Amino acid sequence: MNYMKLERLAKIVEALKTTPRTGWLLRGVYPAIAETIAAHMYESAVLALMLGEELRSCGIEVDPQHAAAVAIVHDAAEAIVGDIVKYTAEAMGKELKERIEVEAARKEIPSVLLLKLLEEYVAQNTMESELVKIAEMLSTLIQSLRYIQHGFSSVSEIACSTAQGIDKILNGDIRLACLRKTLQRYIDMGLRYCSKK
Amino acid sequence: MNYMKLERLAKIVEALKTTPRTGWLLRGVYPAIAETIAAHMYESAVLALMLGEELRSCGIEVDPQHAAAVAIVHDAAEAIVGDIVKYTAEAMGKELKERIEVEAARKEIPSVLLLKLLEEYVAQNTMESELVKIAEMLSTLIQSLRYIQHGFSSVSEIACSTAQGIDKILNGDIRLACLRKTLQRYIDMGLRYCSKK
Amino acid sequence: MNYMKLERLAKIVEALKTTPRTGWLLRGVYPAIAETIAAHMYESAVLALMLGEELRSCGIEVDPQHAAAVAIVHDAAEAIVGDIVKYTAEAMGKELKERIEVEAARKEIPSVLLLKLLEEYVAQNTMESELVKIAEMLSTLIQSLRYIQHGFSSVSEIACSTAQGIDKILNGDIRLACLRKTLQRYIDMGLRYCSKK
Amino acid sequence: MNYMKLERLAKIVEALKTTPRTGWLLRGVYPAIAETIAAHMYESAVLALMLGEELRSCGIEVDPQHAAAVAIVHDAAEAIVGDIVKYTAEAMGKELKERIEVEAARKEIPSVLLLKLLEEYVAQNTMESELVKIAEMLSTLIQSLRYIQHGFSSVSEIACSTAQGIDKILNGDIRLACLRKTLQRYIDMGLRYCSKK
Amino acid sequence: MNYMKLERLAKIVEALKTTPRTGWLLRGVYPAIAETIAAHMYESAVLALMLGEELRSCGIEVDPQHAAAVAIVHDAAEAIVGDIVKYTAEAMGKELKERIEVEAARKEIPSVLLLKLLEEYVAQNTMESELVKIAEMLSTLIQSLRYIQHGFSSVSEIACSTAQGIDKILNGDIRLACLRKTLQRYIDMGLRYCSKK
Amino acid sequence: MNYMKLERLAKIVEALKTTPRTGWLLRGVYPAIAETIAAHMYESAVLALMLGEELRSCGIEVDPQHAAAVAIVHDAAEAIVGDIVKYTAEAMGKELKERIEVEAARKEIPSVLLLKLLEEYVAQNTMESELVKIAEMLSTLIQSLRYIQHGFSSVSEIACSTAQGIDKILNGDIRLACLRKTLQRYIDMGLRYCSKK
Repeated sequence: MNYMKLERLAKIVEALKTTPRTGWLLRGVYPAIAETIAAHMYESAVLALMLGEELRSCGIEVDPQHAAAVAIVHDAAEAIVGDIVKYTAEAMGKELKERIEVEAARKEIPSVLLLKLLEEYVAQNTMESELVKIAEMLSTLIQSLRYIQHGFSSVSEIACSTAQGIDKILNGDIRLACLRKTLQRYIDMGLRYCSKK
Repeated sequence: MNYMKLERLAKIVEALKTTPRTGWLLRGVYPAIAETIAAHMYESAVLALMLGEELRSCGIEVDPQHAAAVAIVHDAAEAIVGDIVKYTAEAMGKELKERIEVEAARKEIPSVLLLKLLEEYVAQNTMESELVKIAEMLSTLIQSLRYIQHGFSSVSEIACSTAQGIDKILNGDIRLACLRKTLQRYIDMGLRYCSKK
Repeated sequence: MNYMKLERLAKIVEALKTTPRTGWLLRGVYPAIAETIAAHMYESAVLALMLGEELRSCGIEVDPQHAAAVAIVHDAAEAIVGDIVKYTAEAMGKELKERIEVEAARKEIPSVLLLKLLEEYVAQNTMESELVKIAEMLSTLIQSLRYIQHGFSSVSEIACSTAQGIDKILNGDIRLACLRKTLQRYIDMGLRYCSKK
Repeated sequence: MNYMKLERLAKIVEALKTTPRTGWLLRGVYPAIAETIAAHMYESAVLALMLGEELRSCGIEVDPQHAAAVAIVHDAAEAIVGDIVKYTAEAMGKELKERIEVEAARKEIPSVLLLKLLEEYVAQNTMESELVKIAEMLSTLIQSLRYIQHGFSSVSEIACSTAQGIDKILNGDIRLACLRKTLQRYIDMGLRYCSKK
Repeated sequence: MNYMKLERLAKIVEALKTTPRTGWLLRGVYPAIAETIAAHMYESAVLALMLGEELRSCGIEVDPQHAAAVAIVHDAAEAIVGDIVKYTAEAMGKELKERIEVEAARKEIPSVLLLKLLEEYVAQNTMESELVKIAEMLSTLIQSLRYIQHGFSSVSEIACSTAQGIDKILNGDIRLACLRKTLQRYIDMGLRYCSKK
Repeated sequence: MNYMKLERLAKIVEALKTTPRTGWLLRGVYPAIAETIAAHMYESAVLALMLGEELRSCGIEVDPQHAAAVAIVHDAAEAIVGDIVKYTAEAMGKELKERIEVEAARKEIPSVLLLKLLEEYVAQNTMESELVKIAEMLSTLIQSLRYIQHGFSSVSEIACSTAQGIDKILNGDIRLACLRKTLQRYIDMGLRYCSKK
């Protein structure tokens, strides 16, 4: 029975490791070079550790390792539900999308701890989950800049929207202000693609 | 302005050519070898031509070339909406999924003809659109058997469900009975994977 | 026996789905990201539908769906013969190349309808087959521009030659003149690469 | 200056995301489908969370989230040093290899926290770092079984050695005994490949 | 001018490095994992060295290093002409195919030495060129066995035909008899696929 | 027994054909498009033939075919040891690295001739092995320029270092001066990336 739990988890992780993020694919990034959901969560987790460390050096109370754990799990429901793009999420309503994801996670993820971390991310009511939100967007922004460098210009739409998203979060919560000095250059690089059409 | 329509269509086709079907990816098929939506529609169209020809030889009135045209377009909305998997489609309701897809197509596909073909497929109220449904499922079944041969055993779930689906359609419409002699062997191969767990 | 026909067709489609076009490969496009013959025929078919629609709106009599069916099949012989590049086609003579392809198709393609569509394309004696010729070249031109954007500069040779080819066909048949307004911008983009060496 | 730290970290993560593990490549796994170092660390982190949860349910004191953070970083030095295979590690001596890795990490990883986590892993003197060692080997074992299923039989050597390695660790530390019920089936699957030559 | 020769050679080598062999592609091997012409010539060259060494140990006069040089060049004309499959070669006639290849090589390969080596291979009138023929077929046989192991069963046709080809050459030239002890096992493995249909 | 030698050699060549060079991977080149060790040796061998021919035309005594044979084998030890990057080679000491490689080759490469060629390369005490050193660096330089064109800017570091390396060797041995006219343009292209940071 414990073995079955591990086997089910391994199937979920396998899906996360072989499924690229839909946003890249729909913008012309070739599947053979498209970032997977697992790779995205990996980068988010590393960035959460570093940004968490930075927040602490500014005197903000946050647990970077807890944030990293949240980051590792934050998109895990996509192993069952798939990576639903923004257009569809808006068309179906953000609440419905999240409800479907959480339900799928509850049914399929064989670990109370993993599930709790995922639900914390969806709820967005802790400092750590907020931090993961930023780390997640920063990871997407950085990857979009890589693809733009490799000639995938349609991706600039994502560079713009994630830069705007990070900027907005930093403006909305005074505790995060100390991340500006680290993030501003990347935000600026992303915003440069907003004017272009 | 006409140029812009072509440019928009080219963007849609590009997305269809670089986006693999989610069903394969979530079952561990590597992105570098995963069938794209465009390739799937291509195979569906070829099969629709051949099965349509067969139906005609049985005296059924159907236009294989019209079916091929429907097949070419039947998943085109996924260029905007993404390829939503069965689990999610069921969780959100098939009607909502189809409504979002048709709306996306109406907004983004710059051709009245293409749009009409897609809507015909969704409505499923012509012999040709029914034929495309079979061709589409047969294409999925054949591709799943290829992946199983290459060692992707999780895909057997799809082999089973598509075989069952084709069988059910053939049972449900007497005009299609004449396709049995062509399809039965593939249906049997797919059904073999239903018992396995 | 019917089953065997389907199996043979499935083998042919498989080859078309896994074989990239030689023109890209020989110009340094990596196999993992090179457009397959099937993907090319797919894009040609979609473009044929749209350009056919446009011709009709100019009062030209043409059946876009018939053109799409031709497009889906036009390179199918390459599943047996391989994708023979221009250099070799010229060295062996265009007639020999076409004869070998048609013979291969006759021997291997298990469908009278598919074969008829392919032969119509080779004969180039209907409005629809001419339309597919344009759609096929436009598809190649558009894909070449994508590769150029991704840094594959050797491909510019193909951008130039297909732009010239489309231009020539439009000049040669007055009925096609109405496509200029849609195609001129792409032709111009392609021609820009003719002067560069 | 803070920006530069982020830029340097992004370069390191990029390398981890594009570099497959050498062990797979040298055993004939194609680069296009070979697991990257980042994907391996991702799977290790998820497994560390779940196994840590299990240990806690057995009354063992361990912080699963801390273990996950260690897992995320444990191979990060390979972004500079490369993934050195067992043969070479043994030839040069395990100490030298670790010294080079730690020195590289100290010079290049722009985060005190990340560095501390990596050093904890190398030292192997906490419950969490021991747990990551198991999770890392389990991740390798599971991935080797996937490759064997896909026909890469040379990989069975790794399935055997990691299964033996996990078994040995479980035998060596009584606190880990409670993981047996979860891990035994995977260990057995791996050991099955030891006898084969 | 010398620089231009190097640039032209680099273009040819680039094509050989990015173009997979058509035989694999048409039998369903995915482009992302298909052996390139360059990789095939590489393996042929290594095998030529080893088999040449073996021949010498049997007292046969042959220069293994000269054979390796021939092997490195033997398919270089395919960078211009493409990799023409057996079906097409037979349809157009082997002589025409070789004439086109040699003419292409003469026009495009900017090195007298490389050209001479290629012509020696085509002429098949030296011990070394005969040895390369065997090495080339052995390389194809070995690669086909790898693909069969990975589940590409259509490739067995090539395993059979190359095994038969090697066997025939060994029978045809008494000097090569000493290679039997090395090659028989591989020949047998290939022949096993001849009976299967 | 002879058969076993061939089987062992085939395993080594397989590893060389599926293992990309670490230098590309660590600089962000995607595995699916990264040059393998075999492809690198192939290009080195072709360049060695051509540069050897050039040296001879300048009256320098050198055997281009012997150089090609050395080139084909020069990195073969990496099939066992892996491709150790410059950073690590320097950290462990060049002598240790070479000793490990030569020992691995002696143990695993089942051919006296291949081994002798490899040892000649490591010793760098013949004109041919020196020529292969240049060809090897030129091959790396040319490939780095290709990747830079495709948007992988981190690779410019390698373009610079190989250009400097070739320049230094040409300066160090008067017999090689005659290669300047062929190589200077490539050296210049590489050096252009030295100033950039």
